[in-house]
Amino acid sequence: MTTARYYHAGCPVCIEAEQTLLGLLDPSINVEIVHLGEQAQRVSEAEQAGVKSVPALVVEGQVLHLNFGAAIADLK
Amino acid sequence: MTTARYYHAGCPVCIEAEQTLLGLLDPSINVEIVHLGEQAQRVSEAEQAGVKSVPALVVEGQVLHLNFGAAIADLK
Repeated sequence: MTTARYYHAGCPVCIEAEQTLLGLLDPSINVEIVHLGEQAQRVSEAEQAGVKSVPALVVEGQVLHLNFGAAIADLK
Repeated sequence: MTTARYYHAGCPVCIEAEQTLLGLLDPSINVEIVHLGEQAQRVSEAEQAGVKSVPALVVEGQVLHLNFGAAIADLK
């Protein structure tokens, strides 16, 4: 089973992208949604995965930055 | 059936995002792949859909800009 992480910060761009994207994904994909505004301790995990801005989807080592809500640096 | 359009310009960022994203989508979604470098006459269609840069996925009036390959203005 493929596991993906959707990192966001609760911003309007993040929520809109989430609604658009997650409805399109294969139902077999397990998506963990990580709100970095509420889980600030996971910002470094996102950075290490290559996330530069949110919202972003990380899957199998690849990062898809979706539109632009906030820079990761602004979440620290 | 949901129909989506994936606009790209053949750039490395475009191809990488395509490989990552399209494999994640629900198989029931019909994705039309539009290479704006080869179909320059469709740049205006993409712009009208709200595409600012490629690669981008347009679905049901929503635009997801994925990473950043090229600005739409540079494809004219």
